[in-house]
Amino acid sequence: MTLSPLAPPRFPDLPIIDGVRFASGAAGVKYEGRDDVMLAELAAGTTIAGVFTRSSTRSAPVLDCQSKLGKPSGERAAFLVNSGNSNAFTGSAGEKSVEALCLGLSDVMTIPEDRIFTASTGVIGERLPHGRIIDTMNDLNARLSPSEIKGAASAIMTTDTFAKGASADVEIDGKVVRIAGIAKGSGMIAPDMATMLVYIFTDAKISQPDLQALLGVLNDKTFNCITVDSDTSTSDTLMVAATGASGVDVTDSAGFTQALRDVMLDLAHQVVRDGEGATKFVEIRVSGAASDTEARVVGLSIANSPLVKTAIAGEDPNWGRIVMAVGKSGAQADRDRLAIRFGDITVAENGWVSADYTEDAGVEYMKQQNLVIGVDLGIGGGLGTVWTCDLTHGYITINADYRS
Amino acid sequence: MTLSPLAPPRFPDLPIIDGVRFASGAAGVKYEGRDDVMLAELAAGTTIAGVFTRSSTRSAPVLDCQSKLGKPSGERAAFLVNSGNSNAFTGSAGEKSVEALCLGLSDVMTIPEDRIFTASTGVIGERLPHGRIIDTMNDLNARLSPSEIKGAASAIMTTDTFAKGASADVEIDGKVVRIAGIAKGSGMIAPDMATMLVYIFTDAKISQPDLQALLGVLNDKTFNCITVDSDTSTSDTLMVAATGASGVDVTDSAGFTQALRDVMLDLAHQVVRDGEGATKFVEIRVSGAASDTEARVVGLSIANSPLVKTAIAGEDPNWGRIVMAVGKSGAQADRDRLAIRFGDITVAENGWVSADYTEDAGVEYMKQQNLVIGVDLGIGGGLGTVWTCDLTHGYITINADYRS
Repeated sequence: MTLSPLAPPRFPDLPIIDGVRFASGAAGVKYEGRDDVMLAELAAGTTIAGVFTRSSTRSAPVLDCQSKLGKPSGERAAFLVNSGNSNAFTGSAGEKSVEALCLGLSDVMTIPEDRIFTASTGVIGERLPHGRIIDTMNDLNARLSPSEIKGAASAIMTTDTFAKGASADVEIDGKVVRIAGIAKGSGMIAPDMATMLVYIFTDAKISQPDLQALLGVLNDKTFNCITVDSDTSTSDTLMVAATGASGVDVTDSAGFTQALRDVMLDLAHQVVRDGEGATKFVEIRVSGAASDTEARVVGLSIANSPLVKTAIAGEDPNWGRIVMAVGKSGAQADRDRLAIRFGDITVAENGWVSADYTEDAGVEYMKQQNLVIGVDLGIGGGLGTVWTCDLTHGYITINADYRS
Repeated sequence: MTLSPLAPPRFPDLPIIDGVRFASGAAGVKYEGRDDVMLAELAAGTTIAGVFTRSSTRSAPVLDCQSKLGKPSGERAAFLVNSGNSNAFTGSAGEKSVEALCLGLSDVMTIPEDRIFTASTGVIGERLPHGRIIDTMNDLNARLSPSEIKGAASAIMTTDTFAKGASADVEIDGKVVRIAGIAKGSGMIAPDMATMLVYIFTDAKISQPDLQALLGVLNDKTFNCITVDSDTSTSDTLMVAATGASGVDVTDSAGFTQALRDVMLDLAHQVVRDGEGATKFVEIRVSGAASDTEARVVGLSIANSPLVKTAIAGEDPNWGRIVMAVGKSGAQADRDRLAIRFGDITVAENGWVSADYTEDAGVEYMKQQNLVIGVDLGIGGGLGTVWTCDLTHGYITINADYRS
């Protein structure tokens, strides 16, 4: 797989999060010659929050994780993730695989099964060869290290072309709280819950209910505002683990909220930047909508439109297709108040092309790799921003051949 | 443009509809060396019904047509359609163009302006050079002929690779009622009203309110059940004109309803078969849903999924992506009751791959040009069928370069 042209220059230096250790290894679930399992150990007392796909055909590991959230957090905990097979739509065999993995890891690490959260990503509908993963557990457990987060980020990749990581720190009451996160995902990416697999670690101290509530709010402004192809995975999982090792209580801390949001948005953008076949990163800013919700609806209608996405791929300033996407969104809109901008260029206003706009200026703007499309509906105060990528021959190539 | 591999062998022989005459010509709106305007004259007393895009940014001609439906039908009437420019998002200039066209044709044909229905299809956001169309009117009017429907079907094409026509007749009380229709459309095709431009003519006798009601019902089972790319045009227009020349009253006639439905479905299928870049025609039959509405929602979720459509393009029996599309649809579904069929092959049942299914059988099935995907949700009695095509490199090529 060729590296995405939108990839960051390198994997970031992520801070060590006190209370978290990582290991990764090669179980041979499907891929040859690369790591495909990651293990994260979380210190006793770590609070864990999660949001998951709302798909009605969600995978066995997702259902298992959901059932375990909010249980007592006194004991150590673990995240166990494999790539290559999603263990989704595998009937009762899927649940048995999850049980076998949790039981196996519980034995190896002496952690209660209800503190073990698994995830699987890859092909749907094939039985997970969980025995191969269990065979690696002793080795993974022996190699746990606080500094191995990059290996973990690499092990969970599927069609990703680069490993994704982000971090932030924030000073609260003279002490530093650290956050580090990793993510995977590049196709089957759409809002309606997060998307793909995301694991975020912090040494902040916060109760499980408070962390869960915060995660839900931030998710709506980050992962739920990105889309690659409008398809929602059966395995989408976003988990945050707060070890409390910093001793800093971050309940209701605006600084921590902002830092966590920054990490989530950074990871969300990286997923879009690794969108299958992507050559352009597109921010769509909607203003003047009847409500924030309607602004997001309009933004996603534009971001998911195949005709808008192919125009961007062709560097064609085809703003008529943006008008179309606004029109079909179902949100309140008035053709004669609509304004469209490409970056700082006013393309259309009052329902028609702007007197100052020239096609040459639009063509020149579209040549950039990072685009900002502004849409003002002129109706109310609703605001929303979504992020997406273009739709190219690369997407077709990847997805017409991925499984066969 | 290469002819779609899914095109019918030839344009059908359409019957003459008593009371209707056609002409087409080259106004040079945008295209060179081909006809781009069609005129249809409808006899005095013709009742006219229509359904239109629900886009909030719909075009000036759509708004004008909507305002004219249901007015007295004593006088003759006319349809005037151009290709190459959609006169959409052209502000007040767009309305002036429509007025100029109606006024011009009213003078030439001595038909009241409120009996003239125009439509425009093509690029959005550019001023319609209506003068060029007006310049052709005398010639078009002089050449009106009952047998020129094929030329009309060709003149309204944009990215279409073949002209679309269909017909049916039905005997009622010993007399024959005839129906003939034409359509254009191959991209920006999605339900939520019809799609593209469709004109259907019949010599049946039926009141405008009855015809309008019938059209709405049939539209929901035909044009509202097809999708090429989930994008909804700003110009979608479907009109039916009943001249009454047969003298046969078809009010509440089951035979007429069925015949009109057949023509609409035939034209809808032809639009899908001319879907931009299409190489496969796909019927998705959903059963066992909580309601007919939910069945349609599930069908469209599958039909609009880029991952399902690219798998079909790659002849990959990737039924996991169908599970995904069911899951994300929002409709009530139970993973463990879900069954999937490719034609007569049971692929999955009870939440997992069928014991009898082989990948070889799936691969062989997917090589066909016409595919039937069956999904049974196992929940209720809801039924629905939708039609779509695959998503190929051809779609990207056409749409990344169409306007520039």
